Amino acid sequence: MGWIKNMNAEEIEKLIEPFLPEEEGPVKTIAGAMNYSIRVGGKRLRPRMVYEAYRCFGGEDMGVIAPIMAAVEMIHNYSLCHDDLPAMDNDDYRRGGLTTHRKYGEAMGILAGDGLQTHAFYTAAKACEAGAAPETVVRTISILAEKSGIGGMLGGQAVDVESAEKNIDLYTITFIHKGKTAALIEASLMMGAVMANASEENIRLMEQLGEAVGIAFQIQDDILDVTGNFDELGKPIGSDDKNNKTTYVSLVGLDASKSALTELFMKARAIISELGERADGLSDILESLVGRKK
Amino acid sequence: MGWIKNMNAEEIEKLIEPFLPEEEGPVKTIAGAMNYSIRVGGKRLRPRMVYEAYRCFGGEDMGVIAPIMAAVEMIHNYSLCHDDLPAMDNDDYRRGGLTTHRKYGEAMGILAGDGLQTHAFYTAAKACEAGAAPETVVRTISILAEKSGIGGMLGGQAVDVESAEKNIDLYTITFIHKGKTAALIEASLMMGAVMANASEENIRLMEQLGEAVGIAFQIQDDILDVTGNFDELGKPIGSDDKNNKTTYVSLVGLDASKSALTELFMKARAIISELGERADGLSDILESLVGRKK
Repeated sequence: MGWIKNMNAEEIEKLIEPFLPEEEGPVKTIAGAMNYSIRVGGKRLRPRMVYEAYRCFGGEDMGVIAPIMAAVEMIHNYSLCHDDLPAMDNDDYRRGGLTTHRKYGEAMGILAGDGLQTHAFYTAAKACEAGAAPETVVRTISILAEKSGIGGMLGGQAVDVESAEKNIDLYTITFIHKGKTAALIEASLMMGAVMANASEENIRLMEQLGEAVGIAFQIQDDILDVTGNFDELGKPIGSDDKNNKTTYVSLVGLDASKSALTELFMKARAIISELGERADGLSDILESLVGRKK
Repeated sequence: MGWIKNMNAEEIEKLIEPFLPEEEGPVKTIAGAMNYSIRVGGKRLRPRMVYEAYRCFGGEDMGVIAPIMAAVEMIHNYSLCHDDLPAMDNDDYRRGGLTTHRKYGEAMGILAGDGLQTHAFYTAAKACEAGAAPETVVRTISILAEKSGIGGMLGGQAVDVESAEKNIDLYTITFIHKGKTAALIEASLMMGAVMANASEENIRLMEQLGEAVGIAFQIQDDILDVTGNFDELGKPIGSDDKNNKTTYVSLVGLDASKSALTELFMKARAIISELGERADGLSDILESLVGRKK
């Protein structure tokens, strides 16, 4: 399979599809709920980052990187699936469709999220069958688990839950953003680099890039929640406001949020430029995020 | 570290403890909720099975098998944590203590379960650092994910949820038992064997043993739910009945359930006797289950 420059969401979905569970037999419903969460749409930003980081550091085997791309998208969707639950954000819509628990019921919403998480690790392990070195796959799984666990995504989520209806400070909101959003983006870039046998220095660089892009992405989300519209976002505007949530914007204001965003994008550009021409794919992703409307 | 014959729950807990997350910093609460789920007690049956299967096939490195023992206990406790949620079984007590969601709130109950699952894979990957061969660790992770995912534990759980308040047949209840209970016991025995580099034939034998023991264990639970008492079980008697659940006992009656149980234990004994003297630890586990009261 050849390399695709500027791979779009549809092309990524084609790569992910073979790793989704089959909707047949007694587990038809839960498999359907898992796949619904994935198929309802999305930018496929994280798998795209896995792919471009892999390519940046000389990775050449599409069969080896595809399961890692699928795995990170499954982890991302499990987190959305559980975030939307009544005990969490209690959201009815996402990406213009019903949330998984609204479509399949609350119990199945919980189980579909659980199943996506398990299936992510099952899928990542498949990279070995495709010919990846086992030590590389173990390291990749370890990064995925660390960054999506309480040392990353889930830690941010937990602090977010505890902060509901409280006045929180900039340190806490940044901790939440770094965990909820940046950690999995860091993981995506790091995993691509690890799978391509990049140097430790470059793996660290990917972590720093992921942190800058991830925090920027979340500040953008907070800005869009104030300034966007339903058609573009696929969910009601002001949903954070509805839940009385402190956001970056509510804390420092719209102008200071936009300045912080610009600064983070500049930092990300600086890291990418260190890597030279081979990072053209990463640069394209970054530029596509600057000024996004959804 | 030397081998311990008939390792008890406390000895297993000492081995697992170093792999639990630290309760400090911003993630103190979720780490506490995760650890609460684990520390509230339990027979530690699955880690004990990992250990004895490993020992049976010549495994000799306690440092290598301990993370796998911890991982399976984390997966088991994540499943209990989510099973107890209001949208699932809505249970207030387990092992004589409050369930995680009752102690920490529903949102944290969901996140603690999620975190235990992630931490299980993170911990399993650590077996490499202790010196296990990476290909063995990848296979072990793959088994853990397959047997705890929709092809196993979660598949059984999903069918159980769908079967609530429905009349279901013996095929379906057996599918549920095989998934909800047997799959992770199969995984435990298989992982111990894989980590000790057992032959494919012996790994399959462990799978068959796990299936027999697991289904027997669940039938026992259904029997105990009718005949046990709160002090022994640590949860209210008849809680399945309360939820109008079809159980093995409600389907075929108490006598036929006891006969099925005897038959499954005989099958398990036959498999163990094939393995000869080295399976003494596995035999001890089996005999400790026969006639258990909780």
